[in-house]
Amino acid sequence: MFRGFDKINSIGIAGAGTIGGAWAAYFLAKGFDVHVADSDAGVEARVNALVEAAWPKFERLGWIAAGAGLDRLNFHTSFAELTGVDFVQESVFEKLEVKRQALRELDAVLPADVIISSSTSGLLVSDMQQGLTHAARVLIGHPMNPPHLIPLVEIVGGDQTDPEAVREATNFYNAIGKRAVVLNKPVIGHLATRLTVALWREAAFLVASGVASAEDVDAAVVYGPGLRSAIAGPHLSYHMGGGENGLAGFFAWAKEPLKVWAGDLGAPEINDALIEALVLGVNRAVGDVPIKQLADARDADLIAVLGALEGRQLT
Amino acid sequence: MFRGFDKINSIGIAGAGTIGGAWAAYFLAKGFDVHVADSDAGVEARVNALVEAAWPKFERLGWIAAGAGLDRLNFHTSFAELTGVDFVQESVFEKLEVKRQALRELDAVLPADVIISSSTSGLLVSDMQQGLTHAARVLIGHPMNPPHLIPLVEIVGGDQTDPEAVREATNFYNAIGKRAVVLNKPVIGHLATRLTVALWREAAFLVASGVASAEDVDAAVVYGPGLRSAIAGPHLSYHMGGGENGLAGFFAWAKEPLKVWAGDLGAPEINDALIEALVLGVNRAVGDVPIKQLADARDADLIAVLGALEGRQLT
Repeated sequence: MFRGFDKINSIGIAGAGTIGGAWAAYFLAKGFDVHVADSDAGVEARVNALVEAAWPKFERLGWIAAGAGLDRLNFHTSFAELTGVDFVQESVFEKLEVKRQALRELDAVLPADVIISSSTSGLLVSDMQQGLTHAARVLIGHPMNPPHLIPLVEIVGGDQTDPEAVREATNFYNAIGKRAVVLNKPVIGHLATRLTVALWREAAFLVASGVASAEDVDAAVVYGPGLRSAIAGPHLSYHMGGGENGLAGFFAWAKEPLKVWAGDLGAPEINDALIEALVLGVNRAVGDVPIKQLADARDADLIAVLGALEGRQLT
Repeated sequence: MFRGFDKINSIGIAGAGTIGGAWAAYFLAKGFDVHVADSDAGVEARVNALVEAAWPKFERLGWIAAGAGLDRLNFHTSFAELTGVDFVQESVFEKLEVKRQALRELDAVLPADVIISSSTSGLLVSDMQQGLTHAARVLIGHPMNPPHLIPLVEIVGGDQTDPEAVREATNFYNAIGKRAVVLNKPVIGHLATRLTVALWREAAFLVASGVASAEDVDAAVVYGPGLRSAIAGPHLSYHMGGGENGLAGFFAWAKEPLKVWAGDLGAPEINDALIEALVLGVNRAVGDVPIKQLADARDADLIAVLGALEGRQLT
């Protein structure tokens, strides 16, 4: 009913800022023809630079599919030119009216079985898909930054989305090396942002309440639980800590302690005094090292971790 | 005033269950004489097995110091025999009276400049150090499981602890490849458990409120934010997401959104219905794979990640 992985050869990228450009690079590496549609004058230079920077990283990770090539990247100035594509990743500016206009233009030219997946982080797909002729094929496929390296894609359907489109999109992303997870209903921040904020809130609370410095709280994550977070999620971790009976065994002893621990977590007031303490802590940790240099170091470490986990044994 | 790294040649392990045994293995690898004191009949076999299982992992990670050797492991049946050691890691049974008794025995035979670091996860050092002659050298050095692989050590002093002992212990752990963080005051769950529970609580809330399955929430961590958690803590991550102005720039735009995001986080009731949903999700994810097999896979993945981050560039 919707074009799935085995019928997808060509990808449309509607809107190619940083997110759309990263998507373009990833789809190219996975062996698709990629058609970027963006009316911005600088789009070709920007996307080409992004793809060229990403390519050696993909090579190092062994992520480049047979037949993939930079020569399969094409540029168009309007969404109406995306008629021949089999799947669209929409990444236009994060504003409802801009999204709606893009979807109307795409909906008008694309066969009804072509899925349109939106990268939106904060809008509701139910709002975005209103008034479209083929609203059933519109859904959210939200990446995490940087989208060409982080596997997670969060899928959310709207009121009019066909569950079959959700299934096909999920299978498609998983088939090309992404890890798609499905949200049964929309929620602020999808999953990843909420989980990130939950961790940050307790980290900030520990600083706000004078327990430890921001740099020590950060170090506690990186050299402690963070080492496990790329390997096992919270529930599987507890499962492995539960003895022979796994997660059920874990809760048999931890149910009451968890109530105490969870009940003692904090939620600091997000005010200027807190922000000042956090900024001071980060400055003590990394001084005045330029952000670009830090981000490059982070990306190198991320590629090292992704490489180490290419043959991951657990999940 | 207290023996620091350059005066420590010999380590006492008071109590050698799983935690004490893992400490013994790590200290051996770092080139110390290790004296295990435990009256349990099975202690030699247990600790030897633990050390032998850990050794090839240390070898793979390049963690074995010059001069280190299995032949530097010694066993004693009473704490009174630990007279010649320069640092004690106490890991006896987690019960206040048992800890107090062990500390009294250690305190009576150890020179006043030998630091006693307790692995306790849930007791207060102020309670444990009451009535000792040399209470100033007693502190908490809490490891994270598995203690021979996870670098994090959480240091907490009590009412009578000398801040100089806290500094020397911190320097010592850091000098031997651990990452010590200091808590300015005791708090339930130190840092790592609190941060772990904060992440789990939101994960469980997302399941409890029907947003996503437990296995998808776990996957969202592992293939999303978890990939970054071993590289950068929450504040450094936001710093790198803040543009040229770093964390201050991040908060300039994110202060109000963070209030919305943080305000929308949940705290599920920890009841049998929730536990059932979580157990079902984990079972769907890993079926009936034995816990031992899962834990072995996790440890292999952990060693791969630790190896990848041996040359870490960011922090």
